[in-house]
Amino acid sequence: MSSAVTYFDHNGTTALDARVLQAMLPYLSEQHGNATSRHTFGRGARHAIEQAREQVADAVGAHPTQVVFTGGGTEADNLAVCGIAANQPGSQIAVSAIEHPAVTRAAFSMRPRGHKVAVVAVDQDGKVEKDNLGVILKEPTSVLSVMLVNNETGAIQDIADIAENAKHHGAYMHTDAVQALGKIKLDFASLNVHAMSLSAHKINGPQGAGALILDKRVDIQPVLHGGGQEKGLRSGTENVAAIVGFGSACALIKQELVQRIGTVRQLRDRLEIGLKNLGAEIFGNKVERIPNTSFFAFPEIEGETLVMALDRKGFAVASGSACSSDSTEPSHVLMVMGIEPDLARGAVRVSFGSGNTPEQLEAFLTVLENELNRLRQLTAIAV
Amino acid sequence: MSSAVTYFDHNGTTALDARVLQAMLPYLSEQHGNATSRHTFGRGARHAIEQAREQVADAVGAHPTQVVFTGGGTEADNLAVCGIAANQPGSQIAVSAIEHPAVTRAAFSMRPRGHKVAVVAVDQDGKVEKDNLGVILKEPTSVLSVMLVNNETGAIQDIADIAENAKHHGAYMHTDAVQALGKIKLDFASLNVHAMSLSAHKINGPQGAGALILDKRVDIQPVLHGGGQEKGLRSGTENVAAIVGFGSACALIKQELVQRIGTVRQLRDRLEIGLKNLGAEIFGNKVERIPNTSFFAFPEIEGETLVMALDRKGFAVASGSACSSDSTEPSHVLMVMGIEPDLARGAVRVSFGSGNTPEQLEAFLTVLENELNRLRQLTAIAV
Repeated sequence: MSSAVTYFDHNGTTALDARVLQAMLPYLSEQHGNATSRHTFGRGARHAIEQAREQVADAVGAHPTQVVFTGGGTEADNLAVCGIAANQPGSQIAVSAIEHPAVTRAAFSMRPRGHKVAVVAVDQDGKVEKDNLGVILKEPTSVLSVMLVNNETGAIQDIADIAENAKHHGAYMHTDAVQALGKIKLDFASLNVHAMSLSAHKINGPQGAGALILDKRVDIQPVLHGGGQEKGLRSGTENVAAIVGFGSACALIKQELVQRIGTVRQLRDRLEIGLKNLGAEIFGNKVERIPNTSFFAFPEIEGETLVMALDRKGFAVASGSACSSDSTEPSHVLMVMGIEPDLARGAVRVSFGSGNTPEQLEAFLTVLENELNRLRQLTAIAV
Repeated sequence: MSSAVTYFDHNGTTALDARVLQAMLPYLSEQHGNATSRHTFGRGARHAIEQAREQVADAVGAHPTQVVFTGGGTEADNLAVCGIAANQPGSQIAVSAIEHPAVTRAAFSMRPRGHKVAVVAVDQDGKVEKDNLGVILKEPTSVLSVMLVNNETGAIQDIADIAENAKHHGAYMHTDAVQALGKIKLDFASLNVHAMSLSAHKINGPQGAGALILDKRVDIQPVLHGGGQEKGLRSGTENVAAIVGFGSACALIKQELVQRIGTVRQLRDRLEIGLKNLGAEIFGNKVERIPNTSFFAFPEIEGETLVMALDRKGFAVASGSACSSDSTEPSHVLMVMGIEPDLARGAVRVSFGSGNTPEQLEAFLTVLENELNRLRQLTAIAV
């Protein structure tokens, strides 16, 4: 059923790479083990986790001891934001206006505990307003969180610069790099941040694994308490198979990144020529973006309606971030970029994966044109 | 390698049932999807999760709307303890002295936020001291957490009675039932609690999935903040395959519970005859226990040493709970039961699964006797 549908929503989630599944399968069958157990099974699980830790570290220019495995990107974001702020009672938490809710809501959850939350403005291209950031950082700030890549527009922030500013003001710097991994070269050291969130299921790894890459000098408290796994920073029995899969997916990125970028960039560039011919407005395209993402709208066409129409014709695309798809409000990212709500309601996101093909894209452009014509006729009749 | 070792540590983790893996595999390949997406893939993922929710609810006598999926048992415990207490600022949190660290440390993590933690004593058999509980509950208490089954001794608490007492005093009642599921009949309604934690990987399901079964009238805050999944109670992209596996494992329990109990009880009873013949002290055996667990010690024999010796001879057993195996302190459960530290340091836990056989057990008893003789000779020489 699903296999007849072409998948263009790789920023939402990705299919597990068959090679990653192969790496995971032993840990889903005979090599079961609780990694805290001392017997053969436990030691096997522990060894597998430590190997994955090296693979993740290696893919992002970090040291294995800097990798804290979590249950996913949301947990990594919560750990960074809440965990750092909690160690500085009453401190200000600063987040950009276009953060994922895993950062923003984590920050706001700290307000009843006496923390103030400052939201850093972005410009019309979705980039952080550095003047505004400067003003905000004058207030003592425990943690500044700015995402490396926005999940909707794909816009890339100047994280190293922003981090320099944060450090200058004595704030710890966190970046959510969930949408960056596998789409651009990622180097923890040169990003200059204290903490960086990653997620496995965005890179053809499994759901249920993520990591916070963490400078060990950061004062931080856990969010999940218990058996003390991950050096006390993330309690709970390790999901060995998922962690192994995460490691495997990272190792593949290390080998294939340049090729993957080439594939999706070609598709995205061709898509955007087609989109412009069809009258689309493309969001964030004046700034540097990841190569697989196009976020656009057609005036007068409701995004949700277009997404459902395309789905019926065999193309899975998103009307915004998967994480807020339950809402019919216009994208908050576009709102803070100052896009008109009427246009923002038309937003559709196409995000390619390296398994997509030019043939799929051409078929998509044909279907898109037909559906636009049909919807415009319906609109004309309704008026 | 591992397959040559007999696994007797099912309270630590279990092998994934091959039928559960089969149920999961489609979601680890072509049926990938982010369950918040609205396209075909997303709706498929959503449907799979809702089916699993029914299976979990059905296995424990709950309604599907009472099932909050989490990343595991630890997260469910943290959600119950921290999430309930957080909504009652300054309230007392009460936990029994034998709780898993996922409950105890979650409770203590709330102290900097103004919560007091009261620890309810247990008797020499590891059962909650009801007089002490009565005294503690005189103080206004937001949540009382007492585990249904202890992971080390396997002792079963009178949760329904304890919950009645908690309710009488206006406290919400939580029980960690992670070690109960699949080993005794479990019925949320008759346990009389407000919240109950479950974990998939203890029942031949996958690591990375758990649930909090939650009375919807409970005032509770999330621990993980973000996209608002699980009705806002557990943000983060759902681990679809793991949730499907959890549902599948629960459906198998529903069908096979009686048979599984029969298998492990026979093995455990035979084991304990053998253990007594060899001079073991068996902990908690004066009270009702789950049928698969035996927690014992031989005077003068260090548990850790025995565990490693048995591992070398092909038997994987635990020296305590897997979650505290990193520590060489005697089991805190045995300490609060008043067991002498010297004896407690000898503690070894055997926990059977329904895949274990009488032949494995007989081989184990032979090896155990040999190893005991060898270790006693070493001890004699050392003295």
